[in-house]
Amino acid sequence: MDDSNTSHFRPKRPSCFMRQLERGYFVGGRLWLEKEGELYMGMGRAILLERIDQYGSIAAAARSMNLGYRNAWLWIEALNRLAPSPLVEKSIGGVGGGNAYLTEEGKKAVKQYRKLKDKFEEFLEQLE
Amino acid sequence: MDDSNTSHFRPKRPSCFMRQLERGYFVGGRLWLEKEGELYMGMGRAILLERIDQYGSIAAAARSMNLGYRNAWLWIEALNRLAPSPLVEKSIGGVGGGNAYLTEEGKKAVKQYRKLKDKFEEFLEQLE
Repeated sequence: MDDSNTSHFRPKRPSCFMRQLERGYFVGGRLWLEKEGELYMGMGRAILLERIDQYGSIAAAARSMNLGYRNAWLWIEALNRLAPSPLVEKSIGGVGGGNAYLTEEGKKAVKQYRKLKDKFEEFLEQLE
Repeated sequence: MDDSNTSHFRPKRPSCFMRQLERGYFVGGRLWLEKEGELYMGMGRAILLERIDQYGSIAAAARSMNLGYRNAWLWIEALNRLAPSPLVEKSIGGVGGGNAYLTEEGKKAVKQYRKLKDKFEEFLEQLE
């Protein structure tokens, strides 16, 4: 999954990586981080964070990836709770609920997951 | 997931690999093969094949991994259909439905997935 793919984000298979092998077979993979048995970070959540950084709005970020607003909130709630410190903060809401932005910890978390994703793609590439 | 873990097979998370990172975080991963958009081989199916090889019986293999008999049949149906040639064959049924065994292609498929799994575990091990 490269960046051009992530703009065609498919909520049903948010964290799937795919690589074509020979004879019509594909190798598929997922990679995520969890804490206390709960999903912390995956491809979908990393994209949501990036979009929040880009749009400054949870609603716009969710809309851009065809993610329900309620789900976006649930993801952010879990991200903030399971991270060492909150990843997303909200400015005081005006019309439309105000803006949202990534904290330093949030930017770090996105970078870390992107690095993990790159390594995973390299791993899949070298499989025969 | 090492071999001792696979004997505590959990049908709800059949293909999950886990590795503990620092500060209570875990990295989780899945790896599978698919064809025509359909799941072909994953950890659960590989274990089922190994158990069929071990017990010579689909019912016993399924039972040993807490897998429903009907699901075992559905998995085998898909494996046989999506493989280059059938992986599991059945001898003519007597009392209890007869025996089952792996074909050469079946043994090869198990070995290939095991190798993939080993590489994936190595990959997870070297993550920071």
